[in-house]
Amino acid sequence: MSLITLGTMAFDAIETPFGKVDKIIGGSATYVAYAASNFIKPVQQISIVGNDFPQEEMDALTARGIELDGVEIVPDQKSFFWSGKYHTDMNSRDTLVTDLNVLADFKPVVPDSYQGAEFLMLGNLMPSLQMSVINQLKTRPKLIVLDTMNFWMDIALDDLKAVLKKVDVLMVNDGEARQLSGEYSLVKAANKILNMGPKFLIIKKGEHGALLFNENHVFFAPALPLEDVFDPTGAGDTFAGGFIGYLAKTKDISFDNMKTAIIVGSAMASFCVEKFGPSRLKEISKEDIDERIQQFVQLVNFDIDLI
Amino acid sequence: MSLITLGTMAFDAIETPFGKVDKIIGGSATYVAYAASNFIKPVQQISIVGNDFPQEEMDALTARGIELDGVEIVPDQKSFFWSGKYHTDMNSRDTLVTDLNVLADFKPVVPDSYQGAEFLMLGNLMPSLQMSVINQLKTRPKLIVLDTMNFWMDIALDDLKAVLKKVDVLMVNDGEARQLSGEYSLVKAANKILNMGPKFLIIKKGEHGALLFNENHVFFAPALPLEDVFDPTGAGDTFAGGFIGYLAKTKDISFDNMKTAIIVGSAMASFCVEKFGPSRLKEISKEDIDERIQQFVQLVNFDIDLI
Repeated sequence: MSLITLGTMAFDAIETPFGKVDKIIGGSATYVAYAASNFIKPVQQISIVGNDFPQEEMDALTARGIELDGVEIVPDQKSFFWSGKYHTDMNSRDTLVTDLNVLADFKPVVPDSYQGAEFLMLGNLMPSLQMSVINQLKTRPKLIVLDTMNFWMDIALDDLKAVLKKVDVLMVNDGEARQLSGEYSLVKAANKILNMGPKFLIIKKGEHGALLFNENHVFFAPALPLEDVFDPTGAGDTFAGGFIGYLAKTKDISFDNMKTAIIVGSAMASFCVEKFGPSRLKEISKEDIDERIQQFVQLVNFDIDLI
Repeated sequence: MSLITLGTMAFDAIETPFGKVDKIIGGSATYVAYAASNFIKPVQQISIVGNDFPQEEMDALTARGIELDGVEIVPDQKSFFWSGKYHTDMNSRDTLVTDLNVLADFKPVVPDSYQGAEFLMLGNLMPSLQMSVINQLKTRPKLIVLDTMNFWMDIALDDLKAVLKKVDVLMVNDGEARQLSGEYSLVKAANKILNMGPKFLIIKKGEHGALLFNENHVFFAPALPLEDVFDPTGAGDTFAGGFIGYLAKTKDISFDNMKTAIIVGSAMASFCVEKFGPSRLKEISKEDIDERIQQFVQLVNFDIDLI
């Protein structure tokens, strides 16, 4: 049982109302890997970095059971760099800098040792690269989950629609679901998107939780009400990592188990936002995760008979 | 066992992206009564109307077990009139007209026949009037719930703070919780507001559900994802009516039972938004309500063991 993740490994500069960091490890694949490795090993990473990515960060990933055979190191270029500033409400942010660097010519290659993986997490990246990884796999994974964003809907919609036909689960936020479907109502948006290929749709609503749609079923997972959201960067990727990590651990891709996996993803995301970058994800223990998941159970648990 | 409700009875003119009505029955007490009367009879109404309020609407309320002894009819004036237009997202609206009419000189009087009620719902109204009703009751009700809005925080904050010291449950929306507390984080806002008097705080987040805070406990109730929100007018009042109606029916004001009551309130509100004004609330049966509540159970139900 293994899990392949495709995504970015990057440096981020982040400013929030609580402070700023000039250079911290980030990237979708980094967050997915930190979250998923609590549940499943190995996590087989596919990404690209430049000559500036610290060896100790690579070692930290390896120590958690993350295989880096699929991570290309480009000796004469820098790693992808993103810089953003969050507004007071933490739900919106301005992108200040996007230096693609190594990402500009990224051509992901699936190592032979990764073949046969049963789970594939396609982190937010150019849809044609997500498609390339699917096409390189000799056996279709049991479950393919794809995360994307409005940027690709703006500039690569046809490529995105093509890859959507190949995946099982799509993750987007509420604004992206509306953009992709042209529907304001999330229920109508979900119906349209489920006709584009994915059998399952997860709509992430940040502090307002997440919805899972499948045929005529819908499940709602809350976000944990937090005193402070310190830094939301990577929360969506962390959610994805917890979600697919739990599914890979339990080897059960039913709607019922996906409900639980969304709670697990929400729990992981609630840790992510407590410190800058992936710092908090590096610290937490299995006990911390269990305790947090119990908080989610308490948060939504109620009893009712017929009125 | 009875329930007193204080609030407005009004005419509304409403425009939404789905259509418009020029004159429909509304007002906080109307919605509270329609929702609560599914669970508890009598509902003892305190309100005021002019000479234009239709007798058939009064009769419709009476037929549902709503007592109108506390509803003053002013023969030479018109009823309160409100007109509003909703934006596409349905979460925000512009108030176009507010004609206070009879409301300008409203001095609520609690009829002798209402004395001894165990539950009191103070619908959204001037805080000094809410206080006046509390002061007229010879025996303090078992539970006092107060709904208010940002308008009263703007123009009558001292009166509002005075009445908050007298109530058990406060209901506000997320923006109002932030305004009242001066805190952006809803968890911090809740902590501050629970120090102002109420033992329980419900923060309504519209399509994003509702939170219940009590000491160190928090419960989250989702809103049902709907294909269309036709008209949100009265949804908050309907939520309040379902909430207190269920508590009055079950005679249990524990935190655990309030969790269930919030689900019931959310279910009632999900009906309210399906048609203009209280039209949908007038139609629904006990079976409709039971079925809707089961949808909420399905919406949030998940199983998990320790990971």
